[in-house]
Amino acid sequence: METSVPGRAETRLQAKILTRLRDAGPQSRIQLSEHFEVSRTTIGTELGRLTALHLVEEIGPAASRGGRRSTVIDLAGHVRFVGIAIGATSVSSAVTDGRLRVLAFERTECDVRRGPEPVLELAAEQGRRLLVKLGVDRPLGVGVSVPGPVDFSRGIPVSPPIMPGWDGYPVRDVLGRRFDCPVLLDNDVNAMALGEQHTGVAGTVENFLFVKVGTGIGCGIVAKSELYRGMDGCAGDIGHIPVADSDAICVCGNTGCLEASFGGGALARDALAAARSGRSPMLGELLERNGTLTAADVGEAVGAGDPVSVQLVRDGGRRVGEVLAGLVSFFNPSLIVLGGGLTLLGHILLAEIRGTIYRRSLPLATRNLPIVMSDLGARAGVIGAARLVSQEAYEVSR
Amino acid sequence: METSVPGRAETRLQAKILTRLRDAGPQSRIQLSEHFEVSRTTIGTELGRLTALHLVEEIGPAASRGGRRSTVIDLAGHVRFVGIAIGATSVSSAVTDGRLRVLAFERTECDVRRGPEPVLELAAEQGRRLLVKLGVDRPLGVGVSVPGPVDFSRGIPVSPPIMPGWDGYPVRDVLGRRFDCPVLLDNDVNAMALGEQHTGVAGTVENFLFVKVGTGIGCGIVAKSELYRGMDGCAGDIGHIPVADSDAICVCGNTGCLEASFGGGALARDALAAARSGRSPMLGELLERNGTLTAADVGEAVGAGDPVSVQLVRDGGRRVGEVLAGLVSFFNPSLIVLGGGLTLLGHILLAEIRGTIYRRSLPLATRNLPIVMSDLGARAGVIGAARLVSQEAYEVSR
Repeated sequence: METSVPGRAETRLQAKILTRLRDAGPQSRIQLSEHFEVSRTTIGTELGRLTALHLVEEIGPAASRGGRRSTVIDLAGHVRFVGIAIGATSVSSAVTDGRLRVLAFERTECDVRRGPEPVLELAAEQGRRLLVKLGVDRPLGVGVSVPGPVDFSRGIPVSPPIMPGWDGYPVRDVLGRRFDCPVLLDNDVNAMALGEQHTGVAGTVENFLFVKVGTGIGCGIVAKSELYRGMDGCAGDIGHIPVADSDAICVCGNTGCLEASFGGGALARDALAAARSGRSPMLGELLERNGTLTAADVGEAVGAGDPVSVQLVRDGGRRVGEVLAGLVSFFNPSLIVLGGGLTLLGHILLAEIRGTIYRRSLPLATRNLPIVMSDLGARAGVIGAARLVSQEAYEVSR
Repeated sequence: METSVPGRAETRLQAKILTRLRDAGPQSRIQLSEHFEVSRTTIGTELGRLTALHLVEEIGPAASRGGRRSTVIDLAGHVRFVGIAIGATSVSSAVTDGRLRVLAFERTECDVRRGPEPVLELAAEQGRRLLVKLGVDRPLGVGVSVPGPVDFSRGIPVSPPIMPGWDGYPVRDVLGRRFDCPVLLDNDVNAMALGEQHTGVAGTVENFLFVKVGTGIGCGIVAKSELYRGMDGCAGDIGHIPVADSDAICVCGNTGCLEASFGGGALARDALAAARSGRSPMLGELLERNGTLTAADVGEAVGAGDPVSVQLVRDGGRRVGEVLAGLVSFFNPSLIVLGGGLTLLGHILLAEIRGTIYRRSLPLATRNLPIVMSDLGARAGVIGAARLVSQEAYEVSR
């Protein structure tokens, strides 16, 4: 076992060095040696291998601490990742550097129901265009997220309710051929949770939930600083938890699911009913003007003080809060981050979700629990997708 | 950093070797070297240190695989742990060897509401008696569990609803002085989950829930093979998740908690009401005979075919199942193990819980999900408490 081919322990140390440089920025050799509690010789050996692989480079001398000067190491300047976030109604791509800072970003409206081939074609063109713009030949990896359950190990969507035609489609492999590099596929909420962990408010906490309230409702779970996927990779699928006093039929085939009583689709449906019945003249006007009603129209009506619209948002927030209250008692997170399209509904939604959670969870579990809106918006997904594949790229044995 | 004092990496390897011997039994030097992918020299160095610390010993030559014979290593024969499980109505203790095999066990009825001093006195005497019986001078550690929330790092109960007088009592330190060794305190469900992981049905799965339905209702969470405690250590406190259609007042001060509508206390209360109102003549007879009614009496009435008692158990099982169904969608576990006193109610309870979970969780999350009764009974808690402290004992820097 004692040969010059690096073993598992060495590969792990390499991955740890790369991850440390990604998350904490440039480090001197001494800092790395102290951080990982290994000798400078060991660090030197692994940095030598990583330099030969063009993954790290020296960027100059460290500030003197007395004695021999240390040199500062950074991720190689040419390292690039692509993050692609396919949403229900949009496709976003970013190219990042090794530290996952966004160098270029693009977002296009696109209905995921058009099916995998045109949507992936659009995503691949978007990513390719950004790479060309930045003069990048080949990224180190591409991370992709989709708004539905994913078999992570096989890189395919599994029975995604709002993605007709995508079930079992080899998303990972198709994009792998397009980009000629490793590709990883995950669901949107997992990617967004990783994005919040990397750049957002969740950077310093070990256990948190990222809750997306958009066309669908789902949750990314970070436990002990790592994404938790569950046995079948469907952990966090909270949109189909039944809520009290609802018999709405869900796209999944059951009745009373959270997602069937709130979320983009449900809100538009309820707004339409309120407009047609004459209960909300304001929604009625918006319907007449636009020909249809969306969650954004409800947001507009809320902003204009329409009491029926405010009530729809409050009812929805309460239901989201009821489900989350139970999960807070169960999971005892340090933080809840809310994201997704419906956060455009703003503080009325947030207040109702917060109020319900604080009222109905175990007091011990909420005494220090912040519940906040994401401030990354559409970038959470692409940064998270890039982080996902960076982890893989940095951990590959060499 | 390169001195002969072992650094963090070496200490970790020592802990890993001890844990491997605990969980997989005796191993040859070659097996350990291959398992951890380190050189035989490295393994030899660490085994030398562990031998000097009287933690491991050679127990003979390994079966020949050609070449030089390897020797087989085991945990030292004198290593002993004590596990103590304080329940709502009983105290159990066990002494185990280094592999956590129970060498002696004792269980005594004892009401936890008597307060910390008499109960801990009884627990200490119980443990001490077993140690004397086995000729053990000093155990390597003592693990203790109590039926309420615990501040794990400080070793004290925190506002435990069913343990009057215990709030903030220094359980860990008091027992530490009694046993003159390291003591760790955790809540009962966490200990039981660890017991199931070590000896029970949960030995091979990464993510599972141990659900205790006893006087109270709670849940131990194992994620990625490790106990998950949450930010405040109160993860798994599912007894206070609200259930639909219940306005029962809970000991915690809220209304509609799961634990207020089912569990030992709630079941006795509902049975008493059914006996007094004449709705169940059989429960009425049991009340007259015994002067009071307990969950065990309901079990007897269920066995004798009393329809009112069967209905009470079914209603309770359905409520437990509804809460668990949501948690299954959220956590996507590989296994649910049910334990606690109310499992004496048997297959009617199990069937109702199973039926509700399978009907109301995400199909993807339940397609391979076994829901089983614990077969360890009272031993889950003591084995788990011993495992808890063995982890600590094996990980201490040396």
